[in-house]
Amino acid sequence: MGILLRAESALKSHFQLAAGVGAPPQLQAAMQHAVFTGGARIRPQLCIAVATACGDDAPELTNAAAVALELMHCASLVHDDMPAFDNADFRRGQPTVHKAFSEPLALLSGDGLIVMAYRVLLQAGAGHAHRLLGLMDALTRGVGLPDGIVAGQAWECETTADLAQYQRAKTGALFVAATCSGAIASGHDPAPWRGLGAFLGEAYQVADDIRDVLGDASNLGKPAGQDVANARPSSAQALGLDGAIRYFDSLIEKAGQSIPDCTCRDMLAQLVLLESERLVPKSMCQSYRKKTSASRTTSRTTSRTTSRTSKLAAAPR
Amino acid sequence: MGILLRAESALKSHFQLAAGVGAPPQLQAAMQHAVFTGGARIRPQLCIAVATACGDDAPELTNAAAVALELMHCASLVHDDMPAFDNADFRRGQPTVHKAFSEPLALLSGDGLIVMAYRVLLQAGAGHAHRLLGLMDALTRGVGLPDGIVAGQAWECETTADLAQYQRAKTGALFVAATCSGAIASGHDPAPWRGLGAFLGEAYQVADDIRDVLGDASNLGKPAGQDVANARPSSAQALGLDGAIRYFDSLIEKAGQSIPDCTCRDMLAQLVLLESERLVPKSMCQSYRKKTSASRTTSRTTSRTTSRTSKLAAAPR
Repeated sequence: MGILLRAESALKSHFQLAAGVGAPPQLQAAMQHAVFTGGARIRPQLCIAVATACGDDAPELTNAAAVALELMHCASLVHDDMPAFDNADFRRGQPTVHKAFSEPLALLSGDGLIVMAYRVLLQAGAGHAHRLLGLMDALTRGVGLPDGIVAGQAWECETTADLAQYQRAKTGALFVAATCSGAIASGHDPAPWRGLGAFLGEAYQVADDIRDVLGDASNLGKPAGQDVANARPSSAQALGLDGAIRYFDSLIEKAGQSIPDCTCRDMLAQLVLLESERLVPKSMCQSYRKKTSASRTTSRTTSRTTSRTSKLAAAPR
Repeated sequence: MGILLRAESALKSHFQLAAGVGAPPQLQAAMQHAVFTGGARIRPQLCIAVATACGDDAPELTNAAAVALELMHCASLVHDDMPAFDNADFRRGQPTVHKAFSEPLALLSGDGLIVMAYRVLLQAGAGHAHRLLGLMDALTRGVGLPDGIVAGQAWECETTADLAQYQRAKTGALFVAATCSGAIASGHDPAPWRGLGAFLGEAYQVADDIRDVLGDASNLGKPAGQDVANARPSSAQALGLDGAIRYFDSLIEKAGQSIPDCTCRDMLAQLVLLESERLVPKSMCQSYRKKTSASRTTSRTTSRTTSRTSKLAAAPR
């Protein structure tokens, strides 16, 4: 079974088991909507890939760790989409949870998914107490204070925030949890796998910033232009679009280089490259560069008229 | 040190340790506001009291369990107060988190507190892996699907809900987690302690319903009349006020009777009675009964004029 299929199948079975019997039907439906309406499943895939590289001698624990990571990710999306934050109507091309159900149910779905992530681990880890506690610790660090994804999101509420710290927390933290969890689930030291998660996580956030400016809503599955609209820190604004794309490429390269020596090094490197192309397709960059170049030529002939894109590209680095 | 002081002191030290260094200042302040603006600390007290009855041979683990329960409780209050639910301006006589800070920070504070509860346990349980996993399981059941407090709150979003199931989940579940956690933290079987948590939890919810009708905002520390305003299932409406008060008294009696034989039985029984008086003061009931009686007399003389209170009291049981 491929990694993505394995992740998807584990999500289905663990969700059902962890929901138990007799939960309020609307809440359960809203949580299902949050989890099972698409999604690249990159965090669980990363976890499973690293576990495979580490021998994967406890595959059920690996699956549970992968599922817990995705549930936390989905919880953060449900809450981020709510009117208090992005007020987004669509996610992954489907109505967001608060639109499809209600705001109260979106709020509770996020809470329910966070707790369900722990329940999934607890239900799978009976035979591996030590590894289980390691997985819970990695997950908790990836989500909570001081520098998990909840803290990352909260940097948006501060008047000043360090861009790198914000990105490490908002996206990087759960990627680090993903690579570390793959190692822990297989009884390995997570330390050598931190780099892969950190570089890929930062690349993911930079890609999100790039796509927020370049992409259209149909490609993103959510509205574009949210960073400017919500005055969020963004690489595309800090480095300019050209700079952000170069930075993204350098992070992908570092992610590839950080993979420890193991029999699965090529498979992991391939996963990183595929993910890179999915995140920021080369065709998209080429198309942007053509446009910018054309815009520069026009700008030269029409004096000081510049497009919004080229303004951002010329922003201070 | 008394139980309340011990709970309060543990909350302060564990919160600080679990918040770590470098979290976004506004988020940390909002979470502190959620936890340290009063509160009866009944769940942590109950946990510590049961642990004491069970020998309390790992007091640091007991303290962590007590703190984790209170953090979950505070998280639920922050989210319940938000505009999507009660839209409450005050809690414990202070501005609610979304009023004192903002809606985004209230949303994230709740999420952060849920995850912090697990972090507190993980930081304290290193030497007691088996008990730690038991505590996490009890906490997770008390909060998540299918019948923890998140599910309880979600029953309010259903078109039909069983009152007893709703109350067991909305309030009872975390009380059961509290008594069970006290036993687990001390290496005891939690089963004999479930009853105490369940009866006291249900009594607490019935008391909340009674006070929502009888109490004024200054006594409650939050607005009264919320059950009717939000069309929530309520004992006071299902049983009438007289019936609800009798039901409350019977639950307190059952809670006292359920305490297993132990050297601390009297102390625990005393705690239950004190809590009962705090929740539904006898003076409040007497005052209500006088008013109802007067209202009935007036009603007899002025034909069909009845007060809102007596209408509720006469509601079908």
